[in-house]
Amino acid sequence: MAERERIFKYHGLGNDFVVLDRRQSGVDIDAETSRWMCDRRRGIGADGVLALLPSTAGLARMVVHNSDGSIAEMCGNGLRCAVKYLVDHAGGRPERILVETGAGVLACVPTYDAHGAAEVDVSMGPARLVASNLPSGATGQPFLQASVPGHSGLHGTAVSMGNPHLVLLDRPLDEAERLGPTLERHPSFPDRTNVEFVRVDPDGLTVVVWERGCGLTQACGTGACASATAAVLAKRLPADAWLRVTLPGGDLQIRVPADLSDIRLRGPATFVFEGVVALPAGR
Amino acid sequence: MAERERIFKYHGLGNDFVVLDRRQSGVDIDAETSRWMCDRRRGIGADGVLALLPSTAGLARMVVHNSDGSIAEMCGNGLRCAVKYLVDHAGGRPERILVETGAGVLACVPTYDAHGAAEVDVSMGPARLVASNLPSGATGQPFLQASVPGHSGLHGTAVSMGNPHLVLLDRPLDEAERLGPTLERHPSFPDRTNVEFVRVDPDGLTVVVWERGCGLTQACGTGACASATAAVLAKRLPADAWLRVTLPGGDLQIRVPADLSDIRLRGPATFVFEGVVALPAGR
Repeated sequence: MAERERIFKYHGLGNDFVVLDRRQSGVDIDAETSRWMCDRRRGIGADGVLALLPSTAGLARMVVHNSDGSIAEMCGNGLRCAVKYLVDHAGGRPERILVETGAGVLACVPTYDAHGAAEVDVSMGPARLVASNLPSGATGQPFLQASVPGHSGLHGTAVSMGNPHLVLLDRPLDEAERLGPTLERHPSFPDRTNVEFVRVDPDGLTVVVWERGCGLTQACGTGACASATAAVLAKRLPADAWLRVTLPGGDLQIRVPADLSDIRLRGPATFVFEGVVALPAGR
Repeated sequence: MAERERIFKYHGLGNDFVVLDRRQSGVDIDAETSRWMCDRRRGIGADGVLALLPSTAGLARMVVHNSDGSIAEMCGNGLRCAVKYLVDHAGGRPERILVETGAGVLACVPTYDAHGAAEVDVSMGPARLVASNLPSGATGQPFLQASVPGHSGLHGTAVSMGNPHLVLLDRPLDEAERLGPTLERHPSFPDRTNVEFVRVDPDGLTVVVWERGCGLTQACGTGACASATAAVLAKRLPADAWLRVTLPGGDLQIRVPADLSDIRLRGPATFVFEGVVALPAGR
């Protein structure tokens, strides 16, 4: 027998998610269900499924299921969508809510318009310059505006936002497709790396992200954070200020504290539709 | 102000559609709405939108909106999905319904299981061997197992199902990606052509379709009809019998009458979910 389940579809700058509110049952979905839900032709279609589970530390615990059935530790675009779902269905307009994630309990601040939450400001955790998934993991020395071995004339900054990033300031944005695949697999990054091609504008950044395992994407929250961090470290933009980061899918706002202890990301979360699906029993 | 509208999502062998029941209002959607609805990241996500409008000749008039906002005359996969919607929401289990399409009023025969219509048998109209969109349009002579000019050793049959097809019997299926792009633009086909790579099995056909303007696809109803027609004309398979045609996305059943007057296609139509979207007023 099939069980009927309510689904809610959202996107953050084109990065799209199915939200499942499982706080009543407390039962997470399995990998097969997330693969089916993300299937864009035979399922609902999404980059990921956000399962909301009961939490004693926050309004919900969010589990991010990728389209291949794996679990992501965190996802900035997904968190904004989950927060919009939670506050739009909570009644009232809370100033701040807590969501439990694989990266800890994160404080999220919605901004409202006539349709509910329009933007959400989320904590993305610290930017790390020395980490096991960066070149600094081997040397103990931050890799800041440093020469990229094997690529003469190319300088980059390595930043971990949990996941690794190689930020290239002042590079032509259309280089991403050509250089991305090679740099993703640069031997200095033990787990491969995301690569950011960044133009520094007077009032912010314009960024194209080559995402590890995905290629060019419309928007990458951690890539925007890493890019802003590199620009602040290079003293090209101020710390402790909201900085515009323009990605192909739209704009995010990033704030980098001088001590890099907690990068904040503010951006839109858009509701698309709600519906009902029949799931095989037990999922 | 936004208006709330019910949506229904279906697929036929992975070719997926949003069904909108506009029989009450009688108002079709515009190109902008169909583009938004088909958008797989910021909209609902589909290959097309099937708008069901009032009809005096059938249960509904089906307008097929492509994802680029254009209108398709007909679509076999879409018609099966529309028929499943119509009979599953009509009450009762009609043996046969009529649907008005850009290709005329078509008789459709559902097969039912416990969940409603499971398969639908639809009329695909005649297969034409002399037509303006085929090589025969210039010569008046059918192009049957004929040598393809400029491709020594390659023999094909040209069939119009409304749209043009070049069917290559007994060709390796993995040739499609290499030969498809060239043959699609073969100068003998004034409007370019779909190309079918066909293996004749003892009990049916296995087909890979290079779709004009799309490339390799999971399933192409008119391609399955054209392939079965070519195999019947070559006396490799019988006329007036249901023939299995295996496509990458799954199986269809095709029946070719000896006079080619009305090719029948039977295949699955699968319901995925229903939902509600907010449309800008006036759409």
